[in-house]
Amino acid sequence: MPRYDTMNTDQLRAEQAHLQQEYAAYKAAGLKLNMARGRPSTEQLNLSNPLLDMLNSSSDFISEEGIDVRNYGTTTGLTEAKRLMACMVDEDPEHVVVGGVSSLNLMYNTVAQFLDFGCLGSKPWSQYDGIKWICPCPGYDRHFQICETFGIKMIPVAMTPDGPDMDEVERIAASDERVKGIWCVPKYSNPTGVTFSDATVRRLASMTCAADDFRIFWDNAYGVHHLHNTPECQDKLLDLGAACVEAGNPHRYVKFASTSKVTFAGGGISAMAASQEAIDEVTSHLSIQTIGYDKINQLRHVRFLKDAAGIASHMEKHAALLRPKFETVDERLTAGLSEAGIGTWTKPRGGYFISFEAPLGCAKRSVELAREAGVIMTSAGATWPYGKDPQDTNVRIAPSLPPVAELAQAMDVFTCCVKLAYLERVLG
Amino acid sequence: MPRYDTMNTDQLRAEQAHLQQEYAAYKAAGLKLNMARGRPSTEQLNLSNPLLDMLNSSSDFISEEGIDVRNYGTTTGLTEAKRLMACMVDEDPEHVVVGGVSSLNLMYNTVAQFLDFGCLGSKPWSQYDGIKWICPCPGYDRHFQICETFGIKMIPVAMTPDGPDMDEVERIAASDERVKGIWCVPKYSNPTGVTFSDATVRRLASMTCAADDFRIFWDNAYGVHHLHNTPECQDKLLDLGAACVEAGNPHRYVKFASTSKVTFAGGGISAMAASQEAIDEVTSHLSIQTIGYDKINQLRHVRFLKDAAGIASHMEKHAALLRPKFETVDERLTAGLSEAGIGTWTKPRGGYFISFEAPLGCAKRSVELAREAGVIMTSAGATWPYGKDPQDTNVRIAPSLPPVAELAQAMDVFTCCVKLAYLERVLG
Repeated sequence: MPRYDTMNTDQLRAEQAHLQQEYAAYKAAGLKLNMARGRPSTEQLNLSNPLLDMLNSSSDFISEEGIDVRNYGTTTGLTEAKRLMACMVDEDPEHVVVGGVSSLNLMYNTVAQFLDFGCLGSKPWSQYDGIKWICPCPGYDRHFQICETFGIKMIPVAMTPDGPDMDEVERIAASDERVKGIWCVPKYSNPTGVTFSDATVRRLASMTCAADDFRIFWDNAYGVHHLHNTPECQDKLLDLGAACVEAGNPHRYVKFASTSKVTFAGGGISAMAASQEAIDEVTSHLSIQTIGYDKINQLRHVRFLKDAAGIASHMEKHAALLRPKFETVDERLTAGLSEAGIGTWTKPRGGYFISFEAPLGCAKRSVELAREAGVIMTSAGATWPYGKDPQDTNVRIAPSLPPVAELAQAMDVFTCCVKLAYLERVLG
Repeated sequence: MPRYDTMNTDQLRAEQAHLQQEYAAYKAAGLKLNMARGRPSTEQLNLSNPLLDMLNSSSDFISEEGIDVRNYGTTTGLTEAKRLMACMVDEDPEHVVVGGVSSLNLMYNTVAQFLDFGCLGSKPWSQYDGIKWICPCPGYDRHFQICETFGIKMIPVAMTPDGPDMDEVERIAASDERVKGIWCVPKYSNPTGVTFSDATVRRLASMTCAADDFRIFWDNAYGVHHLHNTPECQDKLLDLGAACVEAGNPHRYVKFASTSKVTFAGGGISAMAASQEAIDEVTSHLSIQTIGYDKINQLRHVRFLKDAAGIASHMEKHAALLRPKFETVDERLTAGLSEAGIGTWTKPRGGYFISFEAPLGCAKRSVELAREAGVIMTSAGATWPYGKDPQDTNVRIAPSLPPVAELAQAMDVFTCCVKLAYLERVLG
């Protein structure tokens, strides 16, 4: 079959008719496949079941500092839990706060705190006539929703293979003191899979910001989520904290991570890290906001994962389950689209997503057609602020949940839908 | 020994000298006793250790609605967890959101939400020129700190044996649309042990409020925390939700509860409840704030506590451990102070505290003297907004943590200190 862009209208119509038959057959099959979110599979969850045996009724409940983890005490987390989570955020354990299940909640809290109280003595952000945020796109819908709910104006910036377009980021950050922050998923980014280059990290750390209290929200959600075990096949990320200190901007960053995709998405622990002064300020607010987080679950995690080496060897088991799924998506996309010559997609070395670029204006329709055939993808547009992808091209593919056979089937449906959407558009 | 108020100066000086010797002996003993917070004892925590065996590596992880509790899903809690927690807040399970370890965090979130977004279409509270809050006193310091952190002006109202002074509450609520809320610990109140009378609950539900969006924050922290097993010796609380509906003010209340003092203070679950519309609104904000709460721990709690009967029988075990401690405090206070005729204190039928009223102007000094002798009480003033007890009389006694023998010793130190503080004051 020749490339679509070399076909004449008759050939395209014939192809469309053929695809419509294929699509009808998919619809008739009554599929029910959900690839909407980056959920771990049952097999992945099973890897962490021994976590649940780490504390039982006959356990020792005393932390290394002598706290009975079943009782009240310590808002910011057990010392040993800080040490564990420090591995995931590349930070001194003393700069770490350990939270509950959701690192997103720590991010929301931090934005809310800066709005209400400012940071390190700065004017509360809510006192400005509207603040602004830099949003590398495509990005994570939940980040964008936090900005939207607080009425923070989002400014999209393109992602490049080295991270966000730093010329643009620098220009925007320097332009207005109301530009207060940037969302970053710096490693195996959601959804592009990109890991920020050392140069990008250094530019973020050292760039001139109109706002003294500009903050980089560094959501290192996939920091240990490699798909390959050999170091040569793993992305490396420069530590933003050290880069900020070196650049003389020690308070510019706030890092986040969680074990949601290490142990249990429904029962993990999270962490944030920042400079000592910034963490002290967070802690003073936290002590008003909450009695504390689940210390029993913190101790379970420490006993199960142990340390950086423990995390790494546990993540190899995840990789073994995820790798075939990423390969299947790549194979089926190639099989379905390479001859036609439409669509491009990423081949990440870690994380949870493959980012698919449909032909211009075809993402929404492709996802709609897939849904009608029983294959739920992430909504087109979700990876852009306000759910509006200006080119209507990006679709986030989340391969983790379905078994390989279902995944292959879902991707075959999807490629059929992309081609149909494209032909609808060119044939009118 | 005669009452202090019948003694002449010489007699009081002799008594003071005698007490100073007693105090010196306590100081020399090098005590280290902490009664500052309402912490469960180790024996109480042990009662819930079987909770930790409810989910292990070979468990069934599927909720009754088919959710794998280890994975993402449901922001507002498992259906069975809502049903369990509904028992603790006297509410339809559909009106319940199940949270993480800390019900205080749900309260903080709710205040923050109303400040940022208003409630059910009302103007965001932060857009007023300062809002106000009714604070029955003595009360819970953590409640007051939430108001203080947001700059909400607190208006103290006296507690009576029937709950807050409702004449005052009604007058204040009707006086100003900027009066937006009231803190209530309606059963076995912190620290007075008072349970609101039916009439108080009905007046709260039906009173005229200048603000249409006035909210009663109903922190039912001790709803199931009786000290006695026979129903005649247990306080009953009228359901505020039903009373609000009956009074035509169905959205006036937000209820809170937790298992912090049922299972584990360091690893329990919490809940909030309100009208369906109010809970729907909370849920829409929660879905931005967090991915969800710990569902594994929710299922553990359901399997361990089961239902209202399960909670009640579990709480009987707590009562058996707590009762002797409350009795000891009462005995030692009586032994130390009744002849002297100074100080009054409560004899609650549940909850976690005994509220002590020292002679005028003597609370702070009594607590200070006790601390110097190695006995840490809750700071005097903590039970009042801004930490300022206008009469300097109230001291919250938290008997739960120390073993009975230590408790008796601590109370003997404390009564000695109260008498010394009083004599210092009258003798100059």
